[in-house]
Amino acid sequence: MTDIWSPETKYRIWFEIEAHATDALADLGVVPKEAAATIWEADRNAPPFDIARIDAIEAETKHDVIAFLTHVAERTGPSARFLHQGMTSSDVLDTCLAVQLARASDILLDDLDQLLVVLKRRAEEHKYTPTIGRSHGIHAEPTTFGLKLAQAYAEFARNRDRLAAARADVATCAISGAVGTFANINPAVEAHVAAKMGLTPEPVSTQVIPRDRHAMFFATLGVIASSIERLATEIRHLQRTEVLEAEEYFAPGQKGSSAMPHKRNPVLTENLTGLARMVRGYVTPALENVALWHERDISHSSVERYIGPDATITLDFALARLTGVMDKLLVYPERMQKNLDRMGGLTNSQRVLLALTQAGVSREDAYRLVQRNAMKVWESDGALSLKELLKNDADVTAALSDAEIEEKFDPEYHFRHVDTIFDRVFT
Amino acid sequence: MTDIWSPETKYRIWFEIEAHATDALADLGVVPKEAAATIWEADRNAPPFDIARIDAIEAETKHDVIAFLTHVAERTGPSARFLHQGMTSSDVLDTCLAVQLARASDILLDDLDQLLVVLKRRAEEHKYTPTIGRSHGIHAEPTTFGLKLAQAYAEFARNRDRLAAARADVATCAISGAVGTFANINPAVEAHVAAKMGLTPEPVSTQVIPRDRHAMFFATLGVIASSIERLATEIRHLQRTEVLEAEEYFAPGQKGSSAMPHKRNPVLTENLTGLARMVRGYVTPALENVALWHERDISHSSVERYIGPDATITLDFALARLTGVMDKLLVYPERMQKNLDRMGGLTNSQRVLLALTQAGVSREDAYRLVQRNAMKVWESDGALSLKELLKNDADVTAALSDAEIEEKFDPEYHFRHVDTIFDRVFT
Amino acid sequence: MTDIWSPETKYRIWFEIEAHATDALADLGVVPKEAAATIWEADRNAPPFDIARIDAIEAETKHDVIAFLTHVAERTGPSARFLHQGMTSSDVLDTCLAVQLARASDILLDDLDQLLVVLKRRAEEHKYTPTIGRSHGIHAEPTTFGLKLAQAYAEFARNRDRLAAARADVATCAISGAVGTFANINPAVEAHVAAKMGLTPEPVSTQVIPRDRHAMFFATLGVIASSIERLATEIRHLQRTEVLEAEEYFAPGQKGSSAMPHKRNPVLTENLTGLARMVRGYVTPALENVALWHERDISHSSVERYIGPDATITLDFALARLTGVMDKLLVYPERMQKNLDRMGGLTNSQRVLLALTQAGVSREDAYRLVQRNAMKVWESDGALSLKELLKNDADVTAALSDAEIEEKFDPEYHFRHVDTIFDRVFT
Amino acid sequence: MTDIWSPETKYRIWFEIEAHATDALADLGVVPKEAAATIWEADRNAPPFDIARIDAIEAETKHDVIAFLTHVAERTGPSARFLHQGMTSSDVLDTCLAVQLARASDILLDDLDQLLVVLKRRAEEHKYTPTIGRSHGIHAEPTTFGLKLAQAYAEFARNRDRLAAARADVATCAISGAVGTFANINPAVEAHVAAKMGLTPEPVSTQVIPRDRHAMFFATLGVIASSIERLATEIRHLQRTEVLEAEEYFAPGQKGSSAMPHKRNPVLTENLTGLARMVRGYVTPALENVALWHERDISHSSVERYIGPDATITLDFALARLTGVMDKLLVYPERMQKNLDRMGGLTNSQRVLLALTQAGVSREDAYRLVQRNAMKVWESDGALSLKELLKNDADVTAALSDAEIEEKFDPEYHFRHVDTIFDRVFT
Repeated sequence: MTDIWSPETKYRIWFEIEAHATDALADLGVVPKEAAATIWEADRNAPPFDIARIDAIEAETKHDVIAFLTHVAERTGPSARFLHQGMTSSDVLDTCLAVQLARASDILLDDLDQLLVVLKRRAEEHKYTPTIGRSHGIHAEPTTFGLKLAQAYAEFARNRDRLAAARADVATCAISGAVGTFANINPAVEAHVAAKMGLTPEPVSTQVIPRDRHAMFFATLGVIASSIERLATEIRHLQRTEVLEAEEYFAPGQKGSSAMPHKRNPVLTENLTGLARMVRGYVTPALENVALWHERDISHSSVERYIGPDATITLDFALARLTGVMDKLLVYPERMQKNLDRMGGLTNSQRVLLALTQAGVSREDAYRLVQRNAMKVWESDGALSLKELLKNDADVTAALSDAEIEEKFDPEYHFRHVDTIFDRVFT
Repeated sequence: MTDIWSPETKYRIWFEIEAHATDALADLGVVPKEAAATIWEADRNAPPFDIARIDAIEAETKHDVIAFLTHVAERTGPSARFLHQGMTSSDVLDTCLAVQLARASDILLDDLDQLLVVLKRRAEEHKYTPTIGRSHGIHAEPTTFGLKLAQAYAEFARNRDRLAAARADVATCAISGAVGTFANINPAVEAHVAAKMGLTPEPVSTQVIPRDRHAMFFATLGVIASSIERLATEIRHLQRTEVLEAEEYFAPGQKGSSAMPHKRNPVLTENLTGLARMVRGYVTPALENVALWHERDISHSSVERYIGPDATITLDFALARLTGVMDKLLVYPERMQKNLDRMGGLTNSQRVLLALTQAGVSREDAYRLVQRNAMKVWESDGALSLKELLKNDADVTAALSDAEIEEKFDPEYHFRHVDTIFDRVFT
Repeated sequence: MTDIWSPETKYRIWFEIEAHATDALADLGVVPKEAAATIWEADRNAPPFDIARIDAIEAETKHDVIAFLTHVAERTGPSARFLHQGMTSSDVLDTCLAVQLARASDILLDDLDQLLVVLKRRAEEHKYTPTIGRSHGIHAEPTTFGLKLAQAYAEFARNRDRLAAARADVATCAISGAVGTFANINPAVEAHVAAKMGLTPEPVSTQVIPRDRHAMFFATLGVIASSIERLATEIRHLQRTEVLEAEEYFAPGQKGSSAMPHKRNPVLTENLTGLARMVRGYVTPALENVALWHERDISHSSVERYIGPDATITLDFALARLTGVMDKLLVYPERMQKNLDRMGGLTNSQRVLLALTQAGVSREDAYRLVQRNAMKVWESDGALSLKELLKNDADVTAALSDAEIEEKFDPEYHFRHVDTIFDRVFT
Repeated sequence: MTDIWSPETKYRIWFEIEAHATDALADLGVVPKEAAATIWEADRNAPPFDIARIDAIEAETKHDVIAFLTHVAERTGPSARFLHQGMTSSDVLDTCLAVQLARASDILLDDLDQLLVVLKRRAEEHKYTPTIGRSHGIHAEPTTFGLKLAQAYAEFARNRDRLAAARADVATCAISGAVGTFANINPAVEAHVAAKMGLTPEPVSTQVIPRDRHAMFFATLGVIASSIERLATEIRHLQRTEVLEAEEYFAPGQKGSSAMPHKRNPVLTENLTGLARMVRGYVTPALENVALWHERDISHSSVERYIGPDATITLDFALARLTGVMDKLLVYPERMQKNLDRMGGLTNSQRVLLALTQAGVSREDAYRLVQRNAMKVWESDGALSLKELLKNDADVTAALSDAEIEEKFDPEYHFRHVDTIFDRVFT
């Protein structure tokens, strides 16, 4: 990802845009065909662009595109004068940015694909691993660890679709001149360059490609970052000492702390939480970039010099890190079961209540019966078992057999539709 | 738009969700078919929901959904006990929010459609109205006022597509129980309610619909708001005293100020600029809402109580206002021409330079010839005409005839591809 | 707080600004002294402002200040024509906003004072209540619950200072005319009104009071909101089922859920988390309001109509809610101790290591001795006690007596400086 | 500014914190005084820190502070084992960040001082340079260019005060151990290091310094950036072709464009507009950093690695650039006068209206008399002069003499209080 934003890559893309444009101009008869061919030929035989040399010329001319073209002329010879005919700097700069963002998108899409593969594998692995579902941080009802991961999979699959749409939004080519009128360059040049660079022509530009496209792109990155934060936060919660249902991977001999063996910190997911804040922070500047003055002002440029590389590199790093965390995540089903059991079976009290009602007990009585046993369990901090208490409550057993009571505590009851949900998510 | 967020509408949607769910439960044999029918029947014969009554019950029970169901029971009779079987409050609340956001989207899509109609009409009207294109706020080359509007049209057409995608993202239905396992309710209920409410079933929910969907929705509104700011800023620039190429509509007898007839302020577009800031300001809270704890926490709820209505109502108002501004915008082609002429024809200096070169003058000499005349025009603040000076410069006329010089100042030259661009945008 | 933003209050402030300005003009001899006196007198004898009447006039005149002055004239009689002499609307509007923000600040400062009182009381109460300190969500070393609250106290005391500074920043008065030159009004009027309204004169205004002041104000509210989120998040963590060291208050007979006695959700602090997001969301629009065009544009106005009331009312509500939560917070020292003991004393392993070294054991050996016992505790999930294992490890007892070992597990050791810290925070 | 954030500086600060802490420990008798002296002595005689070596150690140990201490030990010899006694990494890291932010603040304060000097000089220079004041981008009443700059001066003077307060907020020292209890280190160490490093002791820390301090710091930078945007936007407006009252400096021989002499773009202030967006964009991540979990989580760290350098370096660059722009700003008083005259004197219509009333003409008649002349001026686009038309209107001259009319167009009238305002701002 860093390569995409290197000077070398940038100049390579500039060259390709200029050379393809010259080809199109040659086809139109505006410049000699031989010149266009020579430009490519000379490039093939020349050493790589000399960044230091370009910098030196720019220090003098104070103009990046002119500096580049001067350097290209040094490598190419007289044919170079047929480059950039009728074009403006923005034609090169904005189309280059489109190529960079498209390539960055491709890497990020690949990152997402890898994350999805890992999430799917771990979800299948733990499809039926029971764990407590929590609302408000409080135990609610049982779910499975696989379902948690299936949710994450579905969320990142949505993000993949969104990123693909955002990529299409920014992958446009504009070679339309000083105010977008094609006054000095035929639209056919734009069409040719677009095709060669894997872009679509911008229907209407105004020296620049409109920045609502880029705003949408960076906003989409902000949404993806927020999803990263969600999953990272989940892992951080699961790893906290009192919960410890999962942990970021620790190599066998690794030490969390020189003295305290319990000190394994979820530093990777904490780090991801911070990175998500940064990627989100780039959304507002991108939105503020939209309202350029008239046909263009250049205020967007400094913003993009920061957020172009920073947002994509950070998100690439974060997605890869998250994939690594999920790939190697240490999962502790026994601890999950222990936590599930922690409330002494209270999470099933509602099912018993319903069963009593169906067995003919009035709702008020049923509630009282369940409640008086549930309260004992609650006061024992889960040391007592609701199921056992109920089996020993004559008023309860008058309505329900032991087997019936037992059935109400069957965790499988909660998992009957796991397969349905997996089908919905993964197929 | 305000109606969508009224208590009346909310309770109506809640009722429909509950009643459709009861229909599905009846089909499954879980509740009596007669009860389901009675629920609809009773509603048809009952007066509207009594908001004050529901509020009074909620003050007691401290639970909004229970208060609502209690009130429904008062209107419905005993059959009401078959409502809400196996459902949790979030099933109702989140599905209701989806309906509200989908309806809000429909209004906003309609707003965009109306804006597009107006922009297209005004663009066609001024397709060939010459005006100066400006980069950096500085005169660059001629364009047409229609092209400016075509750009705005293309931008809002993109926004329409984005909003349609965002609508699809939030228009999902979740009726999946306390932690999304369907433990106490058959997925068929969700499917039925989704179909009836015009939603698609949420593939995997966790008591709540995942908030990346809403984040994407509000981020999209933020992009649209930024496009509004762009067009509003353009109008504000065009109306400033020294430019005055266009103005927000003033009724014939209207007074801008009691004493100063020139005081017509672009207050509507200034207002739009501020409104855009607000809609953008709601994006970050929406992004922060994504990382809920475990299967859900309720921190998103207070945020959505603000931004649900505020973002959609504000954007609806802003789009309608912008449509009104553009519909009635006073356009001053004469002033545009006057401004175009302001630089004494300097905007065509590049074309003359090129023509001299093509006529055999060396590039260095050609530059010097143009420059010496251009400088006089510049120093005269546009009082002198470059064209006339060139016609009186013997070194120039030695290479170019008066007719050839004249041709280089033909504004039509810049507009040769206007039709192409219009085709790209509008067809 | 809502009263501050009501039309009644706004018009009352407008009246006072206008009437005080008229007094000053009378002192300057610009208007008759009797007229100024009559204006106050008439107001004392008149019924309250008729909002509906003002609205009706505004519907006609499309100008809020003119509508107000017309209504005042109806209540006052001919003397009213001496109101508003040489003033512009912004003189009234901006000075009114300053008064409103100053009053809002006073309420918020009072909110903070009340929160500080509660935090101090609870901190003193739990000054020596042992609890585990957690870094990365993982048990680290013991601290006291009082120290946690002392930290919160110190943070909100800083916020109080910041808000006092922010109040001073916005509490300025500008009565300086159309572009701030005092062309038609003597600066003495501004000085008089400022003194009467409890403001300081704005040194240089440009029709409007510069918006960097308001930006700083709302940014400060954003910082306070973030501190609210921090304390709210702490409570949410402490209340989660596996931790349960503290809980939002539940009335004795209150039910968290109809069936599950454990279902007490930290809904108030979750709500506070969401409200913090909103108040933070208002910071960026306030920052974007700074760069008004030239002497002023009115884009800030729509933003302030939202965030003026919304940010202050939300923060007032949030501070009061947080104060209530902290006032009645249920604290469970036994559970804190249980969690402290959960690691079998591992949190003291470092002290033992150090003691062994000081007793002459090499660092490497000491580490090995502690480690082999610590690992057993770790593997037992805290069922074994490190202290007891050490007392039964002959290699350890060769260097340390039982009393010495015992002393290393003295929790008091960690609390020797609590008093120092309390002194630093509370005195 | 970049130096502050270099590894060399960071390690130098780390060393000083550690060595000063060892001094304090020696004073307390915890470590030998000779060791403390040796540590400083060895450092004086050693080559600079070997960054590559520290990186190599960190690659192995995965711990930055341990890697640093290992390298220091290599340079220092056995006395190094007395470094870091009872300290945790955060003691070093957070105190180092405080030193860096304090130093960054000093540079920024100096930047602001330089900007203030320039603004004051240019304000004095143009104290009485007449220019039109604009509200809504529309001509309002005359002001002076010096007043515009005095406003900017006052705004940046406020920003200086705010930054000084923000500096005090972050310049604290925490050496308080794993959870801030001073369990293993005497508070006297913190006091000593604080004094030596120019900081104040943090009253209560929790392994980390609370992040509300940093949030306030970065929020303040966001306000300053917004003020930069305001002044930059003013320059951009003044430079636009139709206004051209001021321009960013162009060197005599410099070319704005190869062909168009009018093409001098305000690229520096456009760039500043973009940079302001970036610095503002860092505010929200800083606010989100406040709510760390329990005694600390490390999510703030990745955020600060970006925004610590990025926000301060960007703001330093922006302030220096703005100072340069204002220092060399080309101001065109003649063009200002030309623009002032552009409306044919309409900006004085209100004064004439008032004079007619005072001369006994009824308000209605006076309005009609002014209006009928003003409208002619307006329709002539400023070609006609209101003053001359009035002098030729018999109904007007019946009430006002030519001299009286003339006086109403005296621009000096508007500038009577300029001196008062300058006194308020600059003394």
